Amino acid sequence: MSFDDVAEKFPRIAQQMSFLMEIDKLKSIIRQSPILGENRKENDAEHSWHLALMAVLLKEHAIDEDVDILQAVKMILIHDIVEIDAGDTFVYDIAANVGKREREVLAAERIFNLLPADQAVEIRALWDEFEERQTPASRFANALDRLHPMMLNYMSGGRGWAAHGVKSSQVFDRNKTMREGSPILWDFASCCVRDAVKEGFLPE
Amino acid sequence: MSFDDVAEKFPRIAQQMSFLMEIDKLKSIIRQSPILGENRKENDAEHSWHLALMAVLLKEHAIDEDVDILQAVKMILIHDIVEIDAGDTFVYDIAANVGKREREVLAAERIFNLLPADQAVEIRALWDEFEERQTPASRFANALDRLHPMMLNYMSGGRGWAAHGVKSSQVFDRNKTMREGSPILWDFASCCVRDAVKEGFLPE
Repeated sequence: MSFDDVAEKFPRIAQQMSFLMEIDKLKSIIRQSPILGENRKENDAEHSWHLALMAVLLKEHAIDEDVDILQAVKMILIHDIVEIDAGDTFVYDIAANVGKREREVLAAERIFNLLPADQAVEIRALWDEFEERQTPASRFANALDRLHPMMLNYMSGGRGWAAHGVKSSQVFDRNKTMREGSPILWDFASCCVRDAVKEGFLPE
Repeated sequence: MSFDDVAEKFPRIAQQMSFLMEIDKLKSIIRQSPILGENRKENDAEHSWHLALMAVLLKEHAIDEDVDILQAVKMILIHDIVEIDAGDTFVYDIAANVGKREREVLAAERIFNLLPADQAVEIRALWDEFEERQTPASRFANALDRLHPMMLNYMSGGRGWAAHGVKSSQVFDRNKTMREGSPILWDFASCCVRDAVKEGFLPE
């Protein structure tokens, strides 16, 4: 393949495409959440699609009803790209979370800089906004990022929770920041967690 | 699981969530495009994520530079959901494309109507807009939907093309509508296809 010849004629598109083809690897980064109809775990690309559509459809439940939904969706589409280098870190695994931030910053620097400089800056700013949880859009995006695995676990009868011996107290503790983005979705999720305990597939 | 109890307390969220959990099945609808780093084909959820991010990053190349990118991204996120019932139809398979429209309309009616009525109407309108290719946003979204498998095929040395004996004349013929959404991305893609022929992994 002589992509160099193509790149000579279309330098900017070729650079954008190099980034877009590099991030194809997100389809191979496996998370701990189950797929409902298959006996496998979901990957980051699937998660990002599902989350983006949740943002569109659940917008009315954001704490700020005028939340910038395009900004939230953009953040969601790129929020896990750093895991191509840094790997997925299970939210309940305290030890694995040590050094996570440093690994992810290095990943952001390598991967985002495959883009033309102006877009590298733009995507880095989006990722920083998501990580810092200071804007309504990033708080909503983060709330959904917590809600999504909770729902897949609940709807699958606790498959991901059971595999790791997770208890309801951990679920409540590790996901309560959801309230910053959507109090009502947190109430809804809490109701599901209590039901999971009552039904016996999540230990108290 | 007594989701009915949860649904009684949060009827609207529960209805939205029933739709969101139903479309988890999109992760199991397999396309003909290869994943670059793995010996498997991509699924519709992965494709939809990749395409949505392409829309964000390649917006400047749309025929209408002021294209409504949120509208394009929303269309992209939902454009393949009908394939949960109707299946993926390979673009080069003429026979399989017979009856596709009817199958997909039935699917849209079943799946979108899992949502609350106001949102079912909204998502159906988005899907119709995508299918009709009459607005700048839908033309751009459709152009990317053609570009994406072309790039995965090109970057993988023609894996998907080879598996189905596709020739370059078919690639040009079946994808030329890309021009309606982005002439420059069509020129770029054509350059890649000509390179694939020159390199010997796509028959003339």
